[in-house]
This record gives sequence, structure tokens and C-alpha cells, in this order.
Amino acid sequence: MSEMLLQSPDLWMTEKHLDTTALGFRIKNILFSQKSAFQHVCVVDTEALGLMLVNDGMIMLSERDEFIYHEMITAVPLFSHKNPKSVLIIGGGDGGTAREVFRHKGIEKCVMVEIDEMVVDACKKFIPSVACELENPKLDLRIEDGVKYVADTKDTFDVVLIDSTDPVGPAAPLFSEAFYQNLSLKLNPGGIVVSQAESPFYDAEIQKGLLKIKHSVFKNLHVFNFTNMTYPGGYWSFSFASQDTTPFENFSDQKVEQSEIDFKYYNKEIHKAAFALPSFMKEKLKDYLSDC
Amino acid sequence: MSEMLLQSPDLWMTEKHLDTTALGFRIKNILFSQKSAFQHVCVVDTEALGLMLVNDGMIMLSERDEFIYHEMITAVPLFSHKNPKSVLIIGGGDGGTAREVFRHKGIEKCVMVEIDEMVVDACKKFIPSVACELENPKLDLRIEDGVKYVADTKDTFDVVLIDSTDPVGPAAPLFSEAFYQNLSLKLNPGGIVVSQAESPFYDAEIQKGLLKIKHSVFKNLHVFNFTNMTYPGGYWSFSFASQDTTPFENFSDQKVEQSEIDFKYYNKEIHKAAFALPSFMKEKLKDYLSDC
Repeated sequence: MSEMLLQSPDLWMTEKHLDTTALGFRIKNILFSQKSAFQHVCVVDTEALGLMLVNDGMIMLSERDEFIYHEMITAVPLFSHKNPKSVLIIGGGDGGTAREVFRHKGIEKCVMVEIDEMVVDACKKFIPSVACELENPKLDLRIEDGVKYVADTKDTFDVVLIDSTDPVGPAAPLFSEAFYQNLSLKLNPGGIVVSQAESPFYDAEIQKGLLKIKHSVFKNLHVFNFTNMTYPGGYWSFSFASQDTTPFENFSDQKVEQSEIDFKYYNKEIHKAAFALPSFMKEKLKDYLSDC
Repeated sequence: MSEMLLQSPDLWMTEKHLDTTALGFRIKNILFSQKSAFQHVCVVDTEALGLMLVNDGMIMLSERDEFIYHEMITAVPLFSHKNPKSVLIIGGGDGGTAREVFRHKGIEKCVMVEIDEMVVDACKKFIPSVACELENPKLDLRIEDGVKYVADTKDTFDVVLIDSTDPVGPAAPLFSEAFYQNLSLKLNPGGIVVSQAESPFYDAEIQKGLLKIKHSVFKNLHVFNFTNMTYPGGYWSFSFASQDTTPFENFSDQKVEQSEIDFKYYNKEIHKAAFALPSFMKEKLKDYLSDC
């Protein structure tokens, strides 16, 4: 079905994690539900958090709290970079990351490589508040395999954002050493790679595995945390990697203030606070993390 | 029933919030389930997070992540105070807050006022890793109404911790102005009150209401955030109130290091980072919060 409206007094969507925990949301409507070549793509309308994109049963975003994820994956690296002009987004088919990139002045080029056109089309049609910049003429949107693109492209970038799902299904190769080896060759001097880095609590081993790989490729490696109402446990991480740049050397309160971007989550205090890791994370990841 | 063991291949416990979201956990056993004079008290064993205390269907704590809540409600005010010797805990029947208080050297007196003896007894019997200090001879454990205790007591305290459930059921009066007016009279000079302050996302209006009340009573008012795997959305707040003390003037990295307490979540960076609020909270609470 391409569009289906259900009216039910008590319809719930449930996402199970590790088959031991579950997150449920009361559903008003199912707006889209189709199987692509890569995954099942679904858009539902929930009572609590508005529209949600759900891929293979995993909630990717909600309309009401997506600003947190999308501000953090973009603002942290863009304000950490000296003068970012070019951005590569791998994944991010919903358009939220691209939308945030274009809020930053000075961005001249943004390439976005999404493997699944159905995600792009569904979000354009049903979640326009997130997908609103996908028609921006400055966006070079390519429907192709991000792993192959990174291996083949001659282009290089100042900031690369790995806006992927979990390491199952189409996103699995994005958690490999070969991918990050290739990616490191496509970074300009001062370049920064930020990746979705799973739950430090529920997915601690997957997170450690990803950081081990990035540690073998990049000289500087950090983790920063944020909150997400639709991810299991609500506590989530991004990793920050670079050969030559830290999260703070080019950052200043003035840069954030002068940008005049009206962030709903990110601010100058949050930039610094997000890198303060709880003791259990510092202990678990101590072999891989650089000093802040 | 006082003890019941269920063996089921697929038994789930679900907590609904505002009847629009739900958190579910696969259950191994129900260890305790009884109605007290105040609420339904239940202890279950979950696959994901071990033992859980569930009052009136609301998850109070899990064995695996309770360290976050209990370290944060105690370490933040105790390291913010110049020289804390006396602590009052209102609520906290599971014993986790008392356990953390006694890890800090120099505490000479700790009074804990819990209204519901059944919570204390169930946790002593079934969750001893949390309740382990409830027999400590330095603990003055009183089974009585915390609101009445605060109104009547002649004692005064350096640090007061309001370790309560949500403002429904037995905890409702702990969210009133009369309670905080009385409490302010029982604080020693330099005294600090920290209260469980709900979700800044799902319970933003309740949080604002609580802060409005505390703002009318205390000169200095701050909010600090933490994560909790079993609370809706996972993103949660404590409020920090005082007539004359801030979270930072008496705090130092050295104090935390010299305590030699082996925290699993709290550390000197987290102390500072927890007070960095996202923009949407700063905007929502701007009439009540003091500058950091």
C-alpha cells in the first residue's frame, strides 16, 4: 500500500530492542508502508511525538524531537572546524541532516549519498518539515551506495557525517575498517568525521567496536552524547574523528553567537558538555579516546 | 501474594506515560506484588536491566542503571556544599540515595523519611544491592509523612534530597509551595535542596510548575540533567536550590579526586556538564533559573 489511513481507538507501534526492552507509541495513522530493495520503510503519525520514520521496525526519527539528533550531528563538527565549506552526508535520507547543514553560512557544497530512494521519497511526501532542503540546488543528492561512493569519488570534504542506522541491514558496511580507511583519504586537511555511534549503555560492545576501527584510522577520536526520545534508553552517542582537529581548538562561544542560528537544543554550553563522558564510558573506551 | 514466581516464555511489563508512549521490559519473575496503604508496590526481575522496583505501575529504578540517578542526586549537592555533615532524604525508600550519601566522608547524620514502609521492606528483602545501607546505625530511618516531618522537626540540615515519585499519589504534596516554604526554614546556612524534577521533554509543564514554586522560595535555582534508562524518553532533571550557595563556588576537581569514591557515572566533568541546558529548556525556564 502506498497510503493507508487507519482509525483505531488503541493502535500501538512497538519497537523491541535485543528482544528484552520495548518502546511503544500510540498511532493515529499509518501514512506509508512499503518494502524497498533494502528495507521496510514506514511513516506513522503518533500521538506523543508526531510523524515518525520507521525503517525495518526501528524508529529513525520523530517530528517532535528530531531537532536534537540533527542539530548535534551537524553543529558540533561544523563549529569545531576552522572554516567548513564542503560537507558529505552518508545516509540521512530523511533530509534532517542536510536541512541543518544549510543553516550554516559558508557551506558551498553538500553531497548526500543515500542508498534507498524510497526513504527520500517517503520523507519528501510525508515529513516535509524534515525533508525541506532535499530540493536545495546546492545539494548534490545521489541515490547510490555510500561505501562505493567513498571508495570511488575524487572529491574531498571538510566535514563528513555518517547519518546511518544500526549495523544491520543496509548500514552494516558503514561500520567497517575498509570504509573508514577510504574515507580518511577523502578528508581535506582539518577534516572531521562524525558518525552515529549507538547506545553507550545497551550497545556498549558495538560502540566499542566502532571506536576501535576509527581509532585505527584517525589520530583524534572523541565521543559526544545527546538524548533521543525514540532510541532505546534515550541516551545516545556520536563519535568525532579527525587526523588533526579537536572539538575545541577552533570552537568559540563567539562563533556560535555570531552564526545567529536559532538552535532548539545545541548551544555553546552544550557543545562542551556533550563531550563530558560518564565514568563507565571513559573506562570502557579508554584505549581509544583522545584527551579532551 | 508476598512472593510469586512466574515462568513464562514471553511475559512483558509495560509502563504507559500520558497514555501515548510506553516502555516495556521482558520479565523473568515477579518477586513481590502487594498493595500498601499508599500505593501498589512491586519488584520484578527483568532480562534487560535486572531487578526493578515498580510503584503504582511506574518504574522507580532498575538494578543495572540505578547508579546514575543515585550518584547524581547525591554527589552533585554534596560536592557543591562547603562541608556537608547532615543530610535529610525525603522519600528514597529503596535505599539507593542513603547508600550513596554514606560513601561521602564527613557525613555525621542522615535522616530519611519514607512514608511507605512496604517499599523499604520489599527493597531490603529483594533488592539488597540498593537497600544495603538501610541498617546503617548512622541512618535515622523514619516511617512517616515527609511533609509533616519537615513542618514539625526542630532539626536543620546541610543538604536535603527530595527523592520522590511523580506528583501523583503519595508524592503529590512534595510538589507544593507550603512544603518548600517549611523546608527552607530547616536548611543550615549554605544549605542545598535537590529534588527530582521530572522530564524536561514530556513533563515540561510539571517541571516549570515545580521550578516556579522553588523560585518563589529560594534565591539560587538551577537544573541539572541526567539519563535514566527506565524513565520515559530517558532524559531527566534534578533541580538544585539554595539561598546562598551555587553548584560551583565550593566545587573543585580536587575535592572529587580526593574523595576517592569510585563513581560509575558522576565525575568532575559530569558535575559541570550536567548544568549545561539545551536551548529549549533555557527558554522554557528562563524566568526561574539563576545564571550558572
